[in-house]
Amino acid sequence: MCGVFGVTNTENASKIAYLGLFALQHRGQESAGISCTDENVIHTHRNAGLVSDVFKEEQLVKLEGNHALGHVRYSTAGGNIGANIQPLTARIGGIPVSLSHNGNIVNSDELRTHLENSGAILQATADTELILHIMARSNKATFLEKLMHSFEELCGAFSLLILTPTHLYAVVDACGYRPLSLGKLKSSNGLPSWVLSSETCAMDLVGATFIRDIAPGEILSIELATGERKSHYFNLTAFQSLKRQHAKCIFEHVYFARPDSLVWNILANDARFAMGEALAKNNPVDADMVIAVPDSGVPMAMGYAHASGIPYKIGLIRNHYVGRTFIEPTQNVRNFKVRLKLNPVRETVRGKKVVVIDDSIVRGTTSRKIIELLYEAGAKEVHMRIASPPVKYPCYYGIDTPKRKELLAQIMTPLEMNDHLKSETLAFLSEEQLIAVMQKFQQKPTLQKEEKENGGWCTACFTGNYQDEIAQTKGYAEKREVL
Amino acid sequence: MCGVFGVTNTENASKIAYLGLFALQHRGQESAGISCTDENVIHTHRNAGLVSDVFKEEQLVKLEGNHALGHVRYSTAGGNIGANIQPLTARIGGIPVSLSHNGNIVNSDELRTHLENSGAILQATADTELILHIMARSNKATFLEKLMHSFEELCGAFSLLILTPTHLYAVVDACGYRPLSLGKLKSSNGLPSWVLSSETCAMDLVGATFIRDIAPGEILSIELATGERKSHYFNLTAFQSLKRQHAKCIFEHVYFARPDSLVWNILANDARFAMGEALAKNNPVDADMVIAVPDSGVPMAMGYAHASGIPYKIGLIRNHYVGRTFIEPTQNVRNFKVRLKLNPVRETVRGKKVVVIDDSIVRGTTSRKIIELLYEAGAKEVHMRIASPPVKYPCYYGIDTPKRKELLAQIMTPLEMNDHLKSETLAFLSEEQLIAVMQKFQQKPTLQKEEKENGGWCTACFTGNYQDEIAQTKGYAEKREVL
Amino acid sequence: MCGVFGVTNTENASKIAYLGLFALQHRGQESAGISCTDENVIHTHRNAGLVSDVFKEEQLVKLEGNHALGHVRYSTAGGNIGANIQPLTARIGGIPVSLSHNGNIVNSDELRTHLENSGAILQATADTELILHIMARSNKATFLEKLMHSFEELCGAFSLLILTPTHLYAVVDACGYRPLSLGKLKSSNGLPSWVLSSETCAMDLVGATFIRDIAPGEILSIELATGERKSHYFNLTAFQSLKRQHAKCIFEHVYFARPDSLVWNILANDARFAMGEALAKNNPVDADMVIAVPDSGVPMAMGYAHASGIPYKIGLIRNHYVGRTFIEPTQNVRNFKVRLKLNPVRETVRGKKVVVIDDSIVRGTTSRKIIELLYEAGAKEVHMRIASPPVKYPCYYGIDTPKRKELLAQIMTPLEMNDHLKSETLAFLSEEQLIAVMQKFQQKPTLQKEEKENGGWCTACFTGNYQDEIAQTKGYAEKREVL
Amino acid sequence: MCGVFGVTNTENASKIAYLGLFALQHRGQESAGISCTDENVIHTHRNAGLVSDVFKEEQLVKLEGNHALGHVRYSTAGGNIGANIQPLTARIGGIPVSLSHNGNIVNSDELRTHLENSGAILQATADTELILHIMARSNKATFLEKLMHSFEELCGAFSLLILTPTHLYAVVDACGYRPLSLGKLKSSNGLPSWVLSSETCAMDLVGATFIRDIAPGEILSIELATGERKSHYFNLTAFQSLKRQHAKCIFEHVYFARPDSLVWNILANDARFAMGEALAKNNPVDADMVIAVPDSGVPMAMGYAHASGIPYKIGLIRNHYVGRTFIEPTQNVRNFKVRLKLNPVRETVRGKKVVVIDDSIVRGTTSRKIIELLYEAGAKEVHMRIASPPVKYPCYYGIDTPKRKELLAQIMTPLEMNDHLKSETLAFLSEEQLIAVMQKFQQKPTLQKEEKENGGWCTACFTGNYQDEIAQTKGYAEKREVL
Repeated sequence: MCGVFGVTNTENASKIAYLGLFALQHRGQESAGISCTDENVIHTHRNAGLVSDVFKEEQLVKLEGNHALGHVRYSTAGGNIGANIQPLTARIGGIPVSLSHNGNIVNSDELRTHLENSGAILQATADTELILHIMARSNKATFLEKLMHSFEELCGAFSLLILTPTHLYAVVDACGYRPLSLGKLKSSNGLPSWVLSSETCAMDLVGATFIRDIAPGEILSIELATGERKSHYFNLTAFQSLKRQHAKCIFEHVYFARPDSLVWNILANDARFAMGEALAKNNPVDADMVIAVPDSGVPMAMGYAHASGIPYKIGLIRNHYVGRTFIEPTQNVRNFKVRLKLNPVRETVRGKKVVVIDDSIVRGTTSRKIIELLYEAGAKEVHMRIASPPVKYPCYYGIDTPKRKELLAQIMTPLEMNDHLKSETLAFLSEEQLIAVMQKFQQKPTLQKEEKENGGWCTACFTGNYQDEIAQTKGYAEKREVL
Repeated sequence: MCGVFGVTNTENASKIAYLGLFALQHRGQESAGISCTDENVIHTHRNAGLVSDVFKEEQLVKLEGNHALGHVRYSTAGGNIGANIQPLTARIGGIPVSLSHNGNIVNSDELRTHLENSGAILQATADTELILHIMARSNKATFLEKLMHSFEELCGAFSLLILTPTHLYAVVDACGYRPLSLGKLKSSNGLPSWVLSSETCAMDLVGATFIRDIAPGEILSIELATGERKSHYFNLTAFQSLKRQHAKCIFEHVYFARPDSLVWNILANDARFAMGEALAKNNPVDADMVIAVPDSGVPMAMGYAHASGIPYKIGLIRNHYVGRTFIEPTQNVRNFKVRLKLNPVRETVRGKKVVVIDDSIVRGTTSRKIIELLYEAGAKEVHMRIASPPVKYPCYYGIDTPKRKELLAQIMTPLEMNDHLKSETLAFLSEEQLIAVMQKFQQKPTLQKEEKENGGWCTACFTGNYQDEIAQTKGYAEKREVL
Repeated sequence: MCGVFGVTNTENASKIAYLGLFALQHRGQESAGISCTDENVIHTHRNAGLVSDVFKEEQLVKLEGNHALGHVRYSTAGGNIGANIQPLTARIGGIPVSLSHNGNIVNSDELRTHLENSGAILQATADTELILHIMARSNKATFLEKLMHSFEELCGAFSLLILTPTHLYAVVDACGYRPLSLGKLKSSNGLPSWVLSSETCAMDLVGATFIRDIAPGEILSIELATGERKSHYFNLTAFQSLKRQHAKCIFEHVYFARPDSLVWNILANDARFAMGEALAKNNPVDADMVIAVPDSGVPMAMGYAHASGIPYKIGLIRNHYVGRTFIEPTQNVRNFKVRLKLNPVRETVRGKKVVVIDDSIVRGTTSRKIIELLYEAGAKEVHMRIASPPVKYPCYYGIDTPKRKELLAQIMTPLEMNDHLKSETLAFLSEEQLIAVMQKFQQKPTLQKEEKENGGWCTACFTGNYQDEIAQTKGYAEKREVL
Repeated sequence: MCGVFGVTNTENASKIAYLGLFALQHRGQESAGISCTDENVIHTHRNAGLVSDVFKEEQLVKLEGNHALGHVRYSTAGGNIGANIQPLTARIGGIPVSLSHNGNIVNSDELRTHLENSGAILQATADTELILHIMARSNKATFLEKLMHSFEELCGAFSLLILTPTHLYAVVDACGYRPLSLGKLKSSNGLPSWVLSSETCAMDLVGATFIRDIAPGEILSIELATGERKSHYFNLTAFQSLKRQHAKCIFEHVYFARPDSLVWNILANDARFAMGEALAKNNPVDADMVIAVPDSGVPMAMGYAHASGIPYKIGLIRNHYVGRTFIEPTQNVRNFKVRLKLNPVRETVRGKKVVVIDDSIVRGTTSRKIIELLYEAGAKEVHMRIASPPVKYPCYYGIDTPKRKELLAQIMTPLEMNDHLKSETLAFLSEEQLIAVMQKFQQKPTLQKEEKENGGWCTACFTGNYQDEIAQTKGYAEKREVL
């Protein structure tokens, strides 16, 4: 997962981008970078580390220019080597270009082989660089044509921002897996000052107003000199197999997004509260208290408590200084990896029947430790309630889920999982229940009309129904590993 | 504010201390350090930064020995220069000594002048070093006598741990301002393994069991070779003026302690919930929702919601990556210093009457910005409820409160404060109400029998009634500055 | 200027390369790097800084494999940005390749434009990367053919080492501007262990024996598995204009090479002593002592003293800690930039007639300051003698000389220079005299038979007679700037 | 060994001190520091590393004030821990004080024990801190009296600079073991601008003029406000045993001093040339060439060549990038530790009879390797000539010589040493011959009249005749270890 942010026509553009990235820090803590354009030059600074580590006053001051683009990265494909840190920069057709990418290219292996065979020299191991090479090799006349031509060769998830000395482009793949929103900042010189961001919480921080989401298949071009924006749509004939439907990642609402973000125009916090309510209605239990696995579990637990009438209590405390711990397990301290992050409130749970609400179960290791810690702290019964379906299939669209064989739901039924986790009872929200929760939110019809039957959500990690044949094939390949 | 942690008779003592400090990180983020003793040597590593930055595997491995002591520091007196980073080490009477201190020495100026005049060379600007010099200059025969003699010269708050190659000492000043708890770890060699910690949350993390608090005026000595512990009490004739009563800092419960810590045997989370309940009963308001200023306001808001029947909502989101930001205000982004840390959930508060619960008002700048942000986000009415009395007086016992003239309550009545903060209404818990909340908790009589009439709490920051004449005099001096 | 070093079939290959680079450190202090090959992988570590800063035990240990290649860089074309630090690595036709380059590509602008126009994405600003891109785009079948094909497109100076998992290649351009020598190390496994180095001083350090120089236009391939070596020669039809003659950079002997290196089989120290002797015979002067501008001036001054009978004295002391100073000139310290590096020995030169021997005059700023310092120190007369002709033309073959208009000899006659430098007298060795000195050394005929009339030396910086039309054209362009 | 430098009444005092330390860098490469005084404050910056690493523009700019003092340190007593880095600072009698020390306190163990027993807390392991503590504990009324009183308690070598907000003091111990010179800088405001430096080469660099040496037992005080200087002499009754004679370290001339420094008013370069001449007269040999072990051997070899008529050649090249190498010996590279630093010029020495001139033999390991390298390079005969007597006794006055039992001359006669080193012949200058060389230099009588019979030189490292009983006793103790 990554975060992208862009802004045009504002003084202190690098500082606005810095604040934007700061608000998107939860989408990637491994590296950060900002590019600014000033006349015909693009200045870039990027490095491994948190936004506040990578950027100090002196770096921001050097990033001159009124238009900026930024990136925070959580290493997915490609490992965390230096050359993968974004924004990536290159000269394409003599023009300096800077690119920030959130998502994952599904046909990257094929593209990489093809490019290397035709003499390209690739520096990075991540897929983002491939996009630049495909653009550079396009023989189309204009830069916009090169862009459109390139996106037709890419299969997968890409919410992109591209900065040149004359334009800022915002691009979303044909399925619109990842969010990318347009907003507007007050400007001092009469021309509009546009903001583009993976999540709207960054707009709040910089004082911008949300306007709309970038549509699937859209290339929004903003002319820097005038602020004029135009929408273009790229042709998708190259990937005939692709179902041209919206496929919004439902995991953004389950886990990734900050609770104060509007994601596809739904407040993540509200979605989570509603998931908790649905979970209570569909999976009630007799208990003394509802507690949450913080942070995303908190609104879910509040929803569960509200719908069930069981009081919500603070039963697990999260240590926010974790992040960069390293320490190897020692003989005389058990379970400390989870314990470092989460401590049960002994006095609260002792002797009680507790419902624990979490957003999802992936490998199951954390859940198992939490349950063990709660019993050690004196809980009488621990009931696990998960506000999403079992994660059975890998994501090829940008979430760093483990391989299929490491997914607990791949090798166990929910009943077996309950035994394995040693919870008293365990229940999930089903895919239909989760979709039903999301359908209740009245959305403005900002997106393209043709919607998937399920409301246009990608639920491939629960169902294995990927949007394209390449992912489907990868899925089958991993299936064979499991068997 | 600082945190101290100690452990005896355990393999990987440095790693246990590391984990302990990690759990105490909220008590000080500016520096961290650990000393271990191994035979006749004390190994120490300390540096500026978070625990996870200061210590990596290689540092911990070098800290050999089965007995350790650690410190995290939030710069109070003395600025953040290198020589102030604890644990401090010295040779006293030929014996290597390492010391960790939480608190503040009230008569440090007098001691510093006296020491320098008699030829001592002081390296640090903080008060902790003075303790070592006083010990070093004591002409008593035994180390324990030197200790007892030294503490008789110190006025103020000190919860100390002192490690020598043969003993670990835990010391609390005569008023017991700051918590210091004793616990026990499972040991593999038959001898007891003791743990000492500023808060019990560190005991949870390392798997230790809480036993009791160190009493005011107590020197607990633990012989490292045998694990034998003995209590001693030092003589207080040197400070006749001192009221020998327990004076537990009530702000530990209002703000400092982690919610999962037992502080003087009361769960901080429970105390805060009860403060919120009392606040609702004494200061009701007609509103659509109760929201919290995270993190310490959350249980208070839940208590307020519970007692008032008004639903608790998530209305302010805290960005946990703040910590080390630096950026200078820019013209085109207003209020961002608070905004970086707290973002109102626009969709939740829009058009609503909101009660905001916070733990305290010190300078008032944060409260004012929060209220402004909430109105900007569309709130209809913003009612401020504070779960403690107005902070009118500086703390000379270890909390880094500003000078008297910077305290908002010093220059305004609550009504004037409401005007200044631009809240609809503003109300505080009174000192009597706060004390009444704390009295409800049935405590085991672990502490000395003679208790202050108000239950043995220090509320000097609300009342100006300091425990000793030196602080009282300082208070008067600052009063003259205000007038 | 740069230094390259390679070694095959030896344990601790990375350490041998480290030592080799250490001996070549005088050829480049800005960055250092080593690649090792182990099975099908190439491991590389490189960074800005001196060899001893870039490499510590932990880096060398990670560079596994028995074959290594290294580079030290003095920034010439391209500035000192990270992407320029060598060895450069890439995958070419699916094979990992590492490349170290000493020299300068004269047609780099044309190649860069051509590559970017055909869709290549260039990371670095230096010319070395172009070589990799040309190889990657060659449609020849074998790697050796790709190499041969690529070198036909390159005009200029390149002494290269190229490491793949199966071969080490040593390449020298058709004019052989820069030295590259082959040596042999004792090997423990029966197969030969080859060493390649810019200068033989690196062979001395690692205990290798010098065998021969790589010839102009030669590609020497060494099969790593067997140690078998073969010579190939690439076709030069692509650059018809090129005079296919040896054009050894005479400045290597005048200034660059370490005095203990055999450069084209002549000891640099002996060449310099002989230059000093010739200088004395052709430009005698009545003086009390001969002093040197260290370090390369020392053997020249000894030669001058020997031929003239005037005693050689130590009159200027060089501070070897300079290197990385930075300090800005201050009002109250004059001339300190030269003074930091060179201090006249006041007691030695006071009241004396002094002949100062230096290797060359480029901008003239240093010479002027040295003369001023010597007069300030009390010298009665300062006579400047330069062991090479006036530098009138820029070097396009790898030496970082300034632009034509900054060369003192371009705008002044020797007589005008004497006035400008304020020396008593000034004299140079003429080009003919310098060539005559070099001709006296009996060389083994290791190089190709066809030699330039002047013995195969490049003296373009003195004469402006470049070896190819591109350099000739650049020279004319700069001439116009001067006029 | 260390270097000290001070300057008064000049703008950019920190930059002048920086340049001064730069010129003294050869006296200590482990750490560097500068203190400046500005009004009542002393600003200090110091760190491990070379002068050019420790100080960048930003550090120097922060060191405000017109009076500065600096230090470079080569770790002698005390190891290289942070607290030992000078200048040391403290408050003494309420006055901030900064101190730079060159030398070694012989009675430091006794002083340390005494101070610790009386309650002092010592931070550093080096002896310099003791001086501050003794000053701080003096009950004398004025600062100057405290100084005088303190120096009476110190036995050993100390050339000190002490900076307070009102004065700069220069102090030399009663025997004057280490040099400390006074000079004068041009000043812009009418008042004198004084310079104090361990060596005069630093005066040359900053443009100051040498005036005189500080005398043994002298405290020179300079009033910063007026520039007025006064000489005081401290009482030495406390060390009755001390022979009150000048005991100038002859090793400063043999090895330490930069060749362009006047040390006790003798040019080090001239002294070394004369040592070489004397060596040739007393120890002639039939040979083809004289070569030097650089750097201090160069003038000695030139003197030998001049007196013997045998030509001086460059036979060993020193690599000036060594300094901070680290690499562990490897099986396939022999002798590389010396080889990294010194490379024989194979073509020069091959088949020749060579006289090698070095300054001294301490452990003998380097000499042995040099001889081996020369034979490997093809030398026919290698004759070793040493321009000083065998080093048989440890120095307790500031030179970091090894323990007595590690000194080669302690366990072997010169004949045995010749066998051990495998030289053809080996000869030394005797103590009488060395003293005779030094006597020839006509010195101005700047120092106190009463001189030692040998001209006032300390030759204890050759003779074992120390100046005081404590050193004599230490010498005996080490003798017992040898036997």
